[in-house]
Amino acid sequence: MEKYLTIYTETRKKIKAFSYFGWLMGWDQETEAPEGSVEYRTKQYQVLAEEMYKIQSDPAYIEAIEYLYAHKESLEDPDFRVEIKNAFKDLRMVKKVPKDELISYRVLTSQASHIWAKAKEADDFQMFAPTLEKIVEFNRKLVKYLETDELKGYDVLLDMYEEGFGVKEYDLFFDTLKKELVPFVLEVTKGNKPKFNRRLKTAIFPKEQQRKFSEYLMEVFSYDLKHGLLKESAHPFTSGVSSTDTRITTKFHEDNLASSIFSTIHEMGHAIYELQNDPKYDDTFLHGGTSLGIHESQSRMYENMLGRSMAFWKLHYPKLVELFPKQLKGISVEEFYLYINQVERSLIRIEADELTYSLHVMVRYELEKQMINGKLKVKDLPNKWKSLMSQYVGKRPKTDKEGVLQDIHWSGGAIGYFPTYALGSAYAAQMYEAMNKEINIEEAISKNNIKAINLWLKEHVHTFASSKSPKEILQICTKQDFNPAYYVNYLKNKFKQ
Amino acid sequence: MEKYLTIYTETRKKIKAFSYFGWLMGWDQETEAPEGSVEYRTKQYQVLAEEMYKIQSDPAYIEAIEYLYAHKESLEDPDFRVEIKNAFKDLRMVKKVPKDELISYRVLTSQASHIWAKAKEADDFQMFAPTLEKIVEFNRKLVKYLETDELKGYDVLLDMYEEGFGVKEYDLFFDTLKKELVPFVLEVTKGNKPKFNRRLKTAIFPKEQQRKFSEYLMEVFSYDLKHGLLKESAHPFTSGVSSTDTRITTKFHEDNLASSIFSTIHEMGHAIYELQNDPKYDDTFLHGGTSLGIHESQSRMYENMLGRSMAFWKLHYPKLVELFPKQLKGISVEEFYLYINQVERSLIRIEADELTYSLHVMVRYELEKQMINGKLKVKDLPNKWKSLMSQYVGKRPKTDKEGVLQDIHWSGGAIGYFPTYALGSAYAAQMYEAMNKEINIEEAISKNNIKAINLWLKEHVHTFASSKSPKEILQICTKQDFNPAYYVNYLKNKFKQ
Repeated sequence: MEKYLTIYTETRKKIKAFSYFGWLMGWDQETEAPEGSVEYRTKQYQVLAEEMYKIQSDPAYIEAIEYLYAHKESLEDPDFRVEIKNAFKDLRMVKKVPKDELISYRVLTSQASHIWAKAKEADDFQMFAPTLEKIVEFNRKLVKYLETDELKGYDVLLDMYEEGFGVKEYDLFFDTLKKELVPFVLEVTKGNKPKFNRRLKTAIFPKEQQRKFSEYLMEVFSYDLKHGLLKESAHPFTSGVSSTDTRITTKFHEDNLASSIFSTIHEMGHAIYELQNDPKYDDTFLHGGTSLGIHESQSRMYENMLGRSMAFWKLHYPKLVELFPKQLKGISVEEFYLYINQVERSLIRIEADELTYSLHVMVRYELEKQMINGKLKVKDLPNKWKSLMSQYVGKRPKTDKEGVLQDIHWSGGAIGYFPTYALGSAYAAQMYEAMNKEINIEEAISKNNIKAINLWLKEHVHTFASSKSPKEILQICTKQDFNPAYYVNYLKNKFKQ
Repeated sequence: MEKYLTIYTETRKKIKAFSYFGWLMGWDQETEAPEGSVEYRTKQYQVLAEEMYKIQSDPAYIEAIEYLYAHKESLEDPDFRVEIKNAFKDLRMVKKVPKDELISYRVLTSQASHIWAKAKEADDFQMFAPTLEKIVEFNRKLVKYLETDELKGYDVLLDMYEEGFGVKEYDLFFDTLKKELVPFVLEVTKGNKPKFNRRLKTAIFPKEQQRKFSEYLMEVFSYDLKHGLLKESAHPFTSGVSSTDTRITTKFHEDNLASSIFSTIHEMGHAIYELQNDPKYDDTFLHGGTSLGIHESQSRMYENMLGRSMAFWKLHYPKLVELFPKQLKGISVEEFYLYINQVERSLIRIEADELTYSLHVMVRYELEKQMINGKLKVKDLPNKWKSLMSQYVGKRPKTDKEGVLQDIHWSGGAIGYFPTYALGSAYAAQMYEAMNKEINIEEAISKNNIKAINLWLKEHVHTFASSKSPKEILQICTKQDFNPAYYVNYLKNKFKQ
């Protein structure tokens, strides 16, 4: 036992260190590395990746994981048991999938985003279809390789991104949305017109002032600048490596004031989650969010439920007016609230509003499910996409560019990933209700005491890092299983006016 | 042979990659990493450093170097011969110095800067003296371990920083300065008072405007932003890793306009040198400047000889006035020129002007030489420092804080390093003369054609990276051996008015 523990922890130390440097390279690359430096950097990264592969596939390490897994009952630390369980689960890929197939697939997906981008630009699905067919085919084979008594079909993929959530859980969730939300959305968005000053959408908001407001927001949310920082990048993201270093980016569009505000808040939700992980996980594989869905629940709660609330803007709108006195002159906080909460039937997921967002995701879920089950062919995707969009969101795309070609995810092989986006918002609504029973959230916002919200989430979600599964986190935090009713109620309540 | 070549190049690839990640970590740490992230980062770096040590001390790698060195005559590529020669030279440390002594010394010097900093703060040399004694003592032993027929005494250390430059060369250099420059400086600085508008030293120059001027300077000097960038840090520095990625920092002091201007230009001199290295060296150990002295020659030529020239400011002063209209109102370019070229007897090396700078360095050279030769005890340093300063610069420090305790270098074990600072300026003057015979430098500056200067330096200095020794570079560039007369003449000419 002692021997295997030593092998495991020594190897983990190396993997963590190499991951750190890979992380740092990614951060540098996305935020400031000079354009012409990519080739040299890639070459160095390949050496690191090769070393990493050697370490991770070392037979002694694999043997250690297998031994520890077989004797997991005698491991005293429950966190360590979880870690070993995860490590053993990760071995599946190496042990059950033929190496050459896995490598060809990795090569395929590393090049596919270029093909996808060109197809999207040309608005020509046929350019991407052969590649996507190969990706879907591999995933169907992958499912067969990895199936167990508990996990079958599409569930194998879904479980990779959100442990414990399969077709059964998602069907329950999306059926609720179909029944409750779709008719509501179609009703609310019927012929609606924005009821706010057009200047909010047409004025120019200088970058430097937007940056100042983002800095103000970091204070409001108590984002800890001793362990984080805000920078700019093409697409906003959060990049964390430990509870002592989790950084965010935003993007300033001078013609869109809302964009940087809600990107900054969204990313702070992700970052505060990881910064509030118990530091004891820093040196383990358990640091970080437990799943994509739980991660997204935090970012969306901060962005939408806190950041787009009236209580929030009653307190902070004056600061925004102070920074943009001309642009916001004569525009009331109520109008601003309507502007940041406008809803409409739209075609592009990443531009969708809070109300319709999950319905965009539902389209993808249906399509993935049918493709993996063999009921839908890649060639039939574009039309199926159009008809589902028209059914769920009430708007039919005319082109594939604003339809099936809009997302990059499938080109990278991410099938089973999309549903977590919708799940995150639904988790958030359920967590919000639980938290609101113990602290008055609106009051905390109004008293500029988001610290209290951070603290509650720390104790009920963040501190556990990945040591608990999404379902366990939900139980700890809300004392209930997942229930999409909270989400539907929240949305109906907010958008019924 | 084939086998050893493969071992060597494969190992080099790994060392280069690991160095890349170490480089990136240093850059991040000095420019933006959140304060609280240091502990986690250090832990990861230790793992990398250990791996690096394993690779570098692998007996198979050492054997390969020894074999290749023994058969260097049959290596066809002359660059590769240089690389093997250097690698073999570097083995000395491992082979001739007892490992435990080397490790204790590294531990000592890794902690000594803290002790030095406290001693400096308290202005108490006695706090630092015992540590410095140990450092000097180790260096005296090191000299004994590494002495050869060609290199004896202090030369062993000097050669580490500037190959081919020993006491003989430096004595010739500094004797010239003593004879020619010291009397000149004492004459020129006698009772001199600044003859420029005091507003240059008292006005506030907002950081954002200073940043704009630094951006303007990057254009003027054709610093390639596809392969570089400018950021801020506590102390300005250049950080390069390949001919495709060499970055600089500056520091904006709102009460000191000159500081960021000349820091930016100085660092561009370093950066352009490395960016103009032949890219074929990127994957070898020959990328980078050949020595500290040659590196400093480039930075100081850009900063002082180009950047502090009248031709330069005649062209660019209007841009500065445009950015600081109030602060510079009514101040002529002639006054500005006097301001940036003021000379005075001062105590602190890093604040010294162009004329007196090398005399500060000379003090350190004399002291090091005597310490390593055993003629000067650490306890006698403070007084000796004071008397040399008074002799060479004409000003006697009252405290050790503004005397022997001012520099961090000795605490890190860098003995033999200082002289290269003075040498750099002297190289620069000699190179400038050579270049001026082929292109009219003042005219190039006046016509905003610094590109022509960059190009000349590329062909005569930069392209060779470390494949030539400092002496060889000087021969290629100036067709002469080192001659300090150029430097003395340049300074006398510039400052005689």
